[in-house]
Amino acid sequence: MHEGGKLYTSSHELAEWLGISSAQIRKDLSHFGEFGKQGTGYSVASLYEELRQILHLDREWQLIVVGSGNIGSAVASYSGFAQRGFRVVAFFDNDPNKVGAKVGSFIVQDNSEIASYVSENHVQHAMIAVPAQYAQQVADLLVDSGIRGILNYAPINLSVPDYVHVEYIDPVLHLQKMTYYLE
Amino acid sequence: MHEGGKLYTSSHELAEWLGISSAQIRKDLSHFGEFGKQGTGYSVASLYEELRQILHLDREWQLIVVGSGNIGSAVASYSGFAQRGFRVVAFFDNDPNKVGAKVGSFIVQDNSEIASYVSENHVQHAMIAVPAQYAQQVADLLVDSGIRGILNYAPINLSVPDYVHVEYIDPVLHLQKMTYYLE
Repeated sequence: MHEGGKLYTSSHELAEWLGISSAQIRKDLSHFGEFGKQGTGYSVASLYEELRQILHLDREWQLIVVGSGNIGSAVASYSGFAQRGFRVVAFFDNDPNKVGAKVGSFIVQDNSEIASYVSENHVQHAMIAVPAQYAQQVADLLVDSGIRGILNYAPINLSVPDYVHVEYIDPVLHLQKMTYYLE
Repeated sequence: MHEGGKLYTSSHELAEWLGISSAQIRKDLSHFGEFGKQGTGYSVASLYEELRQILHLDREWQLIVVGSGNIGSAVASYSGFAQRGFRVVAFFDNDPNKVGAKVGSFIVQDNSEIASYVSENHVQHAMIAVPAQYAQQVADLLVDSGIRGILNYAPINLSVPDYVHVEYIDPVLHLQKMTYYLE
């Protein structure tokens, strides 16, 4: 709506876009203060900006990538992270054949440098793009280094402390969501 | 639970695992018939098998991949699809330098062969792993060829008929889910 230049919206219109009830939208927003006015609804520009602040999307976040195989290479050549507020700042790998080589415009660094890099650059996000059998040890290393948000491409569940957030990219789960509708 | 050899569970226990209410679980399951018994709860083995049937996960699905770049290559070398019921059967690309070349153990075929391949092999699922600017035309081609479920790795929204299901892999959305919790 913001990109389309729309000025006002309502909880009913948002409900239709999002597939949840307008009451839920009003309730969720009320946790964060007063939005919108009786009669005119929500200003799209204000709501957009306030949601960005609430979700901490009004700043640029740094992101390191561990693993420089196919997935890592795809990330290195994709500009969509920076455009949406996540700047990829470094690549790491434990394979001596890859360390020192280039992935996109990055020189791959050794995993042993993760801790000092994260600490010096105050990085909070990391992406794991290594084979499944190495993912837990990489996660442990990331947590010990101070990483607080992990995006995991490896097909295993990671065990991390409660204060670390993990999101999983699992293409098979997405495929499984569709088969119900097919015969 | 099934893999762990657990025999019985309850809507309360499932609710805890899934982070939704036990009432919602009972309500959702009641749409599909009678599950579980008062007192003993659900048999894990029966529930597992019945859910697989309801979700159509009790069979093997075929999957074609359009695009043989980094993402396509990652898919070609990943055994996790077949293990969970989705067999990758063919790769396609429109780049003359890639058609005829190998990606994993597959010979890349030209996009012009998608329609006949899908029709002859009764394929219903496809993965789009091409640059964003080509994704819509690939989606159109897939829909015209008879594909009914699309897993889209390209960072754009696809326009498809209602009877076609699309799932999006968007790593930035996952990153955005975590920033709320970080400072």
